[in-house]
Amino acid sequence: MNARSNDPSAARPGRTGVWLVGACGGVATLTVVGARAVARGLRPPVGLLTETPPFSALELPAVADLVFGGHEVRDTDWVRAADEYRRRAGVLDEGLLAALRDDLEAASAQLRPGFLVNPSPAVRALAAKGRTARARTPREVVAGIQADLRGFVERNRLDTVVVVNVSSTEPPRELPIEWATLERFERSLEGRTRAAWTASVLHAYAALDAGFPFVNFTPSPGSTIPALVELALARGVPHMGSDGKTGETLVKTVLAPLFTGRALRVLSWEGYNMLGNRDGLVLDDPRAKASKTKSKDAALRSLLRDGGAHTRVTIDYVPSLDDWKVAWDYVHFEGFLGAKMAMQFTWQGNDSVLAAPLVLDLARWAALARARGESGLMTHLAAYFKSPAGVDEHSFVRQLALLEAYAGRPRAGSSSRARTPGR
Amino acid sequence: MNARSNDPSAARPGRTGVWLVGACGGVATLTVVGARAVARGLRPPVGLLTETPPFSALELPAVADLVFGGHEVRDTDWVRAADEYRRRAGVLDEGLLAALRDDLEAASAQLRPGFLVNPSPAVRALAAKGRTARARTPREVVAGIQADLRGFVERNRLDTVVVVNVSSTEPPRELPIEWATLERFERSLEGRTRAAWTASVLHAYAALDAGFPFVNFTPSPGSTIPALVELALARGVPHMGSDGKTGETLVKTVLAPLFTGRALRVLSWEGYNMLGNRDGLVLDDPRAKASKTKSKDAALRSLLRDGGAHTRVTIDYVPSLDDWKVAWDYVHFEGFLGAKMAMQFTWQGNDSVLAAPLVLDLARWAALARARGESGLMTHLAAYFKSPAGVDEHSFVRQLALLEAYAGRPRAGSSSRARTPGR
Amino acid sequence: MNARSNDPSAARPGRTGVWLVGACGGVATLTVVGARAVARGLRPPVGLLTETPPFSALELPAVADLVFGGHEVRDTDWVRAADEYRRRAGVLDEGLLAALRDDLEAASAQLRPGFLVNPSPAVRALAAKGRTARARTPREVVAGIQADLRGFVERNRLDTVVVVNVSSTEPPRELPIEWATLERFERSLEGRTRAAWTASVLHAYAALDAGFPFVNFTPSPGSTIPALVELALARGVPHMGSDGKTGETLVKTVLAPLFTGRALRVLSWEGYNMLGNRDGLVLDDPRAKASKTKSKDAALRSLLRDGGAHTRVTIDYVPSLDDWKVAWDYVHFEGFLGAKMAMQFTWQGNDSVLAAPLVLDLARWAALARARGESGLMTHLAAYFKSPAGVDEHSFVRQLALLEAYAGRPRAGSSSRARTPGR
Amino acid sequence: MNARSNDPSAARPGRTGVWLVGACGGVATLTVVGARAVARGLRPPVGLLTETPPFSALELPAVADLVFGGHEVRDTDWVRAADEYRRRAGVLDEGLLAALRDDLEAASAQLRPGFLVNPSPAVRALAAKGRTARARTPREVVAGIQADLRGFVERNRLDTVVVVNVSSTEPPRELPIEWATLERFERSLEGRTRAAWTASVLHAYAALDAGFPFVNFTPSPGSTIPALVELALARGVPHMGSDGKTGETLVKTVLAPLFTGRALRVLSWEGYNMLGNRDGLVLDDPRAKASKTKSKDAALRSLLRDGGAHTRVTIDYVPSLDDWKVAWDYVHFEGFLGAKMAMQFTWQGNDSVLAAPLVLDLARWAALARARGESGLMTHLAAYFKSPAGVDEHSFVRQLALLEAYAGRPRAGSSSRARTPGR
Repeated sequence: MNARSNDPSAARPGRTGVWLVGACGGVATLTVVGARAVARGLRPPVGLLTETPPFSALELPAVADLVFGGHEVRDTDWVRAADEYRRRAGVLDEGLLAALRDDLEAASAQLRPGFLVNPSPAVRALAAKGRTARARTPREVVAGIQADLRGFVERNRLDTVVVVNVSSTEPPRELPIEWATLERFERSLEGRTRAAWTASVLHAYAALDAGFPFVNFTPSPGSTIPALVELALARGVPHMGSDGKTGETLVKTVLAPLFTGRALRVLSWEGYNMLGNRDGLVLDDPRAKASKTKSKDAALRSLLRDGGAHTRVTIDYVPSLDDWKVAWDYVHFEGFLGAKMAMQFTWQGNDSVLAAPLVLDLARWAALARARGESGLMTHLAAYFKSPAGVDEHSFVRQLALLEAYAGRPRAGSSSRARTPGR
Repeated sequence: MNARSNDPSAARPGRTGVWLVGACGGVATLTVVGARAVARGLRPPVGLLTETPPFSALELPAVADLVFGGHEVRDTDWVRAADEYRRRAGVLDEGLLAALRDDLEAASAQLRPGFLVNPSPAVRALAAKGRTARARTPREVVAGIQADLRGFVERNRLDTVVVVNVSSTEPPRELPIEWATLERFERSLEGRTRAAWTASVLHAYAALDAGFPFVNFTPSPGSTIPALVELALARGVPHMGSDGKTGETLVKTVLAPLFTGRALRVLSWEGYNMLGNRDGLVLDDPRAKASKTKSKDAALRSLLRDGGAHTRVTIDYVPSLDDWKVAWDYVHFEGFLGAKMAMQFTWQGNDSVLAAPLVLDLARWAALARARGESGLMTHLAAYFKSPAGVDEHSFVRQLALLEAYAGRPRAGSSSRARTPGR
Repeated sequence: MNARSNDPSAARPGRTGVWLVGACGGVATLTVVGARAVARGLRPPVGLLTETPPFSALELPAVADLVFGGHEVRDTDWVRAADEYRRRAGVLDEGLLAALRDDLEAASAQLRPGFLVNPSPAVRALAAKGRTARARTPREVVAGIQADLRGFVERNRLDTVVVVNVSSTEPPRELPIEWATLERFERSLEGRTRAAWTASVLHAYAALDAGFPFVNFTPSPGSTIPALVELALARGVPHMGSDGKTGETLVKTVLAPLFTGRALRVLSWEGYNMLGNRDGLVLDDPRAKASKTKSKDAALRSLLRDGGAHTRVTIDYVPSLDDWKVAWDYVHFEGFLGAKMAMQFTWQGNDSVLAAPLVLDLARWAALARARGESGLMTHLAAYFKSPAGVDEHSFVRQLALLEAYAGRPRAGSSSRARTPGR
Repeated sequence: MNARSNDPSAARPGRTGVWLVGACGGVATLTVVGARAVARGLRPPVGLLTETPPFSALELPAVADLVFGGHEVRDTDWVRAADEYRRRAGVLDEGLLAALRDDLEAASAQLRPGFLVNPSPAVRALAAKGRTARARTPREVVAGIQADLRGFVERNRLDTVVVVNVSSTEPPRELPIEWATLERFERSLEGRTRAAWTASVLHAYAALDAGFPFVNFTPSPGSTIPALVELALARGVPHMGSDGKTGETLVKTVLAPLFTGRALRVLSWEGYNMLGNRDGLVLDDPRAKASKTKSKDAALRSLLRDGGAHTRVTIDYVPSLDDWKVAWDYVHFEGFLGAKMAMQFTWQGNDSVLAAPLVLDLARWAALARARGESGLMTHLAAYFKSPAGVDEHSFVRQLALLEAYAGRPRAGSSSRARTPGR
């Protein structure tokens, strides 16, 4: 975070857009349904850290003031997606969806066809019957995205819009030379769409270039490549990523300090994840899975310090689980006098249910940072991510301390930083 | 902590006594065996946080400089207790005990018959064939303990001695009026031994009154009653308690922040503990068990804040487990949009193996505090206790931050504070 | 089983009544909802062993031919009970209940106010706002029940009616002297209602005396007391009990043969059950709980043969689980050369969902036995019960072999055995 | 089983050889140590089903009459192997090994260098520093094995010798055309050693051809290929396989009938196995692992009947576990009215401890069958195997019923069948 407003009277942001890339997936759909349910008082704000002290005292945009839109490559909308989700995962009930039907229909008017950029076969299959936007060059993709964002702002008279990437995980890749600096990046945008380009990177560029905060909730590269870190500072926009920390990795980053804090030697930490949703299907592509397991394993390895532990992260597709994730971890450790002991846990969570309130929190934090005139990586949000850009700390509790420090710190900076968002 | 030495050159403490009340129980026996195994380089110091950075840079007494003694009511010594432990729990091996036989025999010469003070039936049974010290009044018990401690110091030319209570848990009781102030306490010492008196309290008094640091590793009252908190300040001695945090409660205090840090609502947290050692037998007395479950449950309830969670702590005696503890916890929680999710863990640990290095750590910390001239509650040691006296923080990671702050803080205070210990 | 029809052409029973004592509890409600859902083809018959080969080839009454009625002490009906269940346990969905609304309303017309006989405080509380039938003596209770049953048969032109007790568990008691023989039993019926009488016994008497098969799905005494075993033979009526085997005990009786079949020595088998429904509330009464844990533990102890194992069954009320049962069992065992090993399992089931198809199966089996002219204990149904009357075999797989043998055995006996049910 | 002695007075076999292929691996070493410990009364016969009623009443060779020998490719013996095992796995203790030292030394004199036949890289590595027997053609391997067996019989004046394969798992392969009939098999033995040949097949041939019973405790092909099934009948020798059922698969074949016996629909059954011994290292070769997972999965799929379940068997190498196996299985199932439920179990066993008594049982059963003059597959031993040759039944309890039937059945057959073993 490079600078922030010194104006403590900066008004709470007003109507704030949340633009979801991958708008009708499970996470995005629950984000929209949940925000409206909370806004209408139909459900308590469980899961929203921003609604609890001391954070609730900050000038975050109200949940009721969030306006949703997004890109989606499949032929669906939030009414249909929510109903499909209800039938599959048993989380939403018919009564709630009936009560929110008008809200979801209205919101669905903000949906726009998504852009396919070097999609994986699984994503291509999802999009097969969908409506996708056409573009021949990376520059055209960017232009298309920005047009959609500006239309969204204007139609809804928004103060700002936070772009959140919740689309399917992209395969990992070596950093292309074009992404090393902003200058190279922008030059290559003019060429033809090549293998290097991915949807997450182009959305990140489009958002930051237009002055909109960007949050990357997936392990895809998004805004955390050097060229875009540079761009965010150049344009004075806040951004953060990567990969929302929702389930097994959250538990790991909570639990690992037990062992280091007692000087116990972790011999093996084996993690088995089973999930059954579209995400699981996409992750059945070994390349996409590699992104995810790398992100999950890195946090643990960082926390254990001692390089001697044998660690493993397995992700398996188990269709009957639908949107539920079951993870079993076995921790084999050595204590005093060579005694071997063990701890195991089973986590049974619904990934979308766990992720959706984080998306809302992140959008609100990004809007606050924007209003305060902050730019660059929002490192105080590390607790939300498996791979928090610019932060070495992986202990969840210590990451929360960063957020508490941010919340408590009087805002500093020059008065000249107030910017009109989205211009 | 009320005062500390301003002399940064205060020498590392030299030969430091560790006086164990309940000297031949599992925890104490492993403490002695382990200290010698580490001192002789036969085992790595796994489990000793004080041997890891940044703490290892402090002027703690070396493990090799610790000298052990203690009170024991049973007829045994460390050679026999270690061998019995090996056969029961499968932790120590014959080769190690053979290598340490001389050390354990020499140490056993420092053992003294324990004092029975209103013992529970289980403790009375343990002591039936043992050698116990005789005393008619509380004052005589105190005098006897102090004579034993002074003899220990003199025989071994110790810089100081830290008294650590690792004896069986005493039943909980209302605070007797005699314990409310030091003046009342000391007056009533002269009377006859009555129901109010307990071994942990008289040992704590004897230690602090003689200027020796006291650490209460059990949930018994020990030094944390008002009269003795007053005494520690009056005599300028450091002390701390209560109840070493080794197993299921440690996991709980590591894990609970996951839920509060994600604003998830814990509906139920049910903890089932099974253990099979002498401690388990003593805890089969419902009154002793009440002390323990109260201490275990309080930490969790404090961490969850929201009073709405249903919590339970059950401790059952399962003889076949011997010194191993198996705990299963089930956490039922609600997330966004009312979705109910669950996490469960199974902890399979050896309580004595987990506790022994904490006893060594605590003795070293207490010796450091003594050398620095600090007095009163060592609140920076909260991470070691289920019920840390004078500390409201139960999150293990935040408690560790207190210790790190203490370790990093330059020592302050007047140069006149250097005291001769044990006077 | 004492006699059976020799007429292999005995027709499949026609319209068969199922009279549920405790008619609007979870088990009974799911029984009725499920039967109608299966009958209408809205749900597959998962859970009904009678719908799978080789049993489906027998002349069991069709699910669509089952007609439901019952006694209930609370003021509710199957429409309301099903809706309440849906909201609580998340099993039924609104669409299904809408489709079955007419069926459930029609069925609810068969409900009759229940009889309170020495109710426990918890049952009394449930009945407080309900409609209960009045009777001054045991004989009047019996007469009232029989009148209800005969009315049910006549209104619906039933071939027979099977009475199934699914009401709350009664506290255990010593066998009263009045229950030792049929003659004493019937004599004492004329006296005043005394402490000895319980609802399950009077319903069992009423059913058997009127020629209706009786199935006791609870651990209450029901028809398995000596006087009623005698009555069933005297009247030539089949009956069976006690205590449906649905969850943790089912797992135990499946799993225990692993250890005996490998000559492994079970050291400890500790079972912890958590449940949150009305049943759990009633079981919070320690006396009712004793019935249940005794029934659960006995099956395991029988299977382990070796009396040396330490066994425990704990049942705890955890409100947030509603109708779900979570059980954790830890099995500590010794193998060759003294090695200690362990197995643990967690069972997460919905008790009513597991029980309801068993009730349907049992009603169909009882109707078949009635049609075949069999009388006395239906020992071939042992696999359905925690405490199968008249059967020492607790291994689930061996119990299933009994059922398979029954299903395969050609029916023997005289052609004259065709009886008019309900006399 | 094709024929058996009609002489009910057939004497209990006398001194019986047990020839272990893979003689100093964990399973074989514990077999020898355990047999001697039981024979000398130093350990109870826990784990030996043959020592429990009704089997203990049969004329099985006494444990004390078993004489051990075997082939081993590494440079070790039973004294060293037992000591290595003790240090690694924490099962054997020094006292026991000291008491058995003379026995183990004497037994080690019977060890012979093993034959390498197309070894996997892992096996080749194990053998690198060992002593292996030389042979240029399959026929020479067979001749060498038979010479070793005959020497063993003669040196020890044995009634018979049972050859048990407990060596490392061989990769799966298509059935070579040479193995389809005995005639082809024997013809090709004369040629050069080619890829098709494996150690398990040549040991099986050598044993059966020489009239010695053969038991294949591994998933390698062994004696269950068509040519050798033919050979066993031709020579009138009993044999059986494959793949001892010790851990997770045992639990699966015990547990699966719970679901089918309640007509519950298994949606997914995911099994994760972790192990750390030499076997785990060999299984890290994906081809060897394929043999194992196929054998493990097939039993479950057979038991579940309904092809709809998603099943998975994963085996991972976790070095810190040494000879311990930890398996976690998650069973997701559907019950009545579409409710989804789950069961999970964790198995923590020591594979060699579990396997060794099975090896002893199998050797005793094979000796009994030999003495009774039985030949061909010993299908009554199905309960001991993951892939019982010639048996479709995988339910452990039903398999045990086969063994009980065998034990109870009066022996039938012609008096002429008494054969001199080993000719």
